[in-house]
Amino acid sequence: MHKIKRNERLAVMTQILTQSPNRIFTLSHFCELFYTMKQFRLGRLETVTGAAGGVRYRPIGLGSYDREFVESICEKLREPARHLPGGYLYFSDILSDPQLVHGMGALIASQYYDANADFVLTMETKGIPVAMMTAEALRVPLIIARHATKVYEGSAVNISYVSGSGRIETMALSRRAVKDGQRALIVDDFMRGGGTARGMIELMKEFSVTVAGICFVLALENPARRLVEGEKTLMLLSDIKDGETLNIRPADWIK
Amino acid sequence: MHKIKRNERLAVMTQILTQSPNRIFTLSHFCELFYTMKQFRLGRLETVTGAAGGVRYRPIGLGSYDREFVESICEKLREPARHLPGGYLYFSDILSDPQLVHGMGALIASQYYDANADFVLTMETKGIPVAMMTAEALRVPLIIARHATKVYEGSAVNISYVSGSGRIETMALSRRAVKDGQRALIVDDFMRGGGTARGMIELMKEFSVTVAGICFVLALENPARRLVEGEKTLMLLSDIKDGETLNIRPADWIK
Repeated sequence: MHKIKRNERLAVMTQILTQSPNRIFTLSHFCELFYTMKQFRLGRLETVTGAAGGVRYRPIGLGSYDREFVESICEKLREPARHLPGGYLYFSDILSDPQLVHGMGALIASQYYDANADFVLTMETKGIPVAMMTAEALRVPLIIARHATKVYEGSAVNISYVSGSGRIETMALSRRAVKDGQRALIVDDFMRGGGTARGMIELMKEFSVTVAGICFVLALENPARRLVEGEKTLMLLSDIKDGETLNIRPADWIK
Repeated sequence: MHKIKRNERLAVMTQILTQSPNRIFTLSHFCELFYTMKQFRLGRLETVTGAAGGVRYRPIGLGSYDREFVESICEKLREPARHLPGGYLYFSDILSDPQLVHGMGALIASQYYDANADFVLTMETKGIPVAMMTAEALRVPLIIARHATKVYEGSAVNISYVSGSGRIETMALSRRAVKDGQRALIVDDFMRGGGTARGMIELMKEFSVTVAGICFVLALENPARRLVEGEKTLMLLSDIKDGETLNIRPADWIK
């Protein structure tokens, strides 16, 4: 049999680790990787002690590119053609661009490794791709709340909430989706006043689940009223007025 | 400055390539990777000639694990607790498990590299995560058709279609989402008779877009009527009857 060379081992170990963020691997010959990963800003390798210990990869601190990355998205969002009548912003394409969404998910996850979430929760539809990538980086399941109960999800808990646009809406989640005592990280695309996020918090109370964090892709900077607190966002938007240039910028915590 | 060693270079190149499926890198010192990738079944490196040429990574032929992987999902789906009243199957959790969805997306993509799709199309909601991962592996955008026109998506094209359950439903897509003459790969979670897929094909006609392929996660093996043709599926399901064991298996093309 062909002897596996050291450099081949390294290439494979790197691939294995970066494809499986947050997973613990039993420790053996991973020491050399520490240096390589740090030098090339591929993220951080952490040692976990104890019987279930080993080494795991977390895509944290991928250099000082985070702010550049978010600024590049702000740049796209400032394009005048995205400004829709009624003060709306078109950004569905950005929310389902795999490369951008992958980066946003990794960046959100980097802020919540210590929150120990058991799952990521989002409300259908636009936030699903970012929430999915966040869940993948945290190596936890994604749970999707729906606007209505679906027959193929079994018995469900329904709540009513007031959406950002002021309407009473319904939010439904299958009873079997989550368990008592778990911890949720809420990820969604946009916060106007926090109505939908408030709904998700209420929904989690029904399941006796703790909300370990809330993060948005984009949030209104000075909403008339704010229904949540302690939330993070990747980008901040000043009030949208027809015919004006969009004032949009990366949040201060992004370095 | 510290001289970068050959093994470090290799580790980094592997990471860069596998994180960016289907992207073409300009060719320089990638030759050694061919052997390593093949030996460890990490996928295939392909050389593209011409001015825009170089080398790109495609997660094709990741060994003979594909069938094992899909069989492991079938195994989960056979659990009696997933069998809901009315002949429905609970599999929302599987459709939003990042590791499973990542694998399914890569497997679907592996079948469509030569279809040259410009984007992946899905219909909200359950198929979004798998479609997202397929789009990421193909390095193309994901386009999500909605049940109704949304104010924040601008002007839209609406069509009516007959869903799997026999109801008339609406499907809407923003005019700016796709362009004349593009090619679409349709990815969805479940095919009963193909009603929703038929709707997506009609929708694409409205945009003068060619459908380059259709792939489902799960399809009914012998539907009463079949509204699409040439589709692929990862898993096949015999008719669901109350109180019987689910007959579910990987499709024959999966080796």
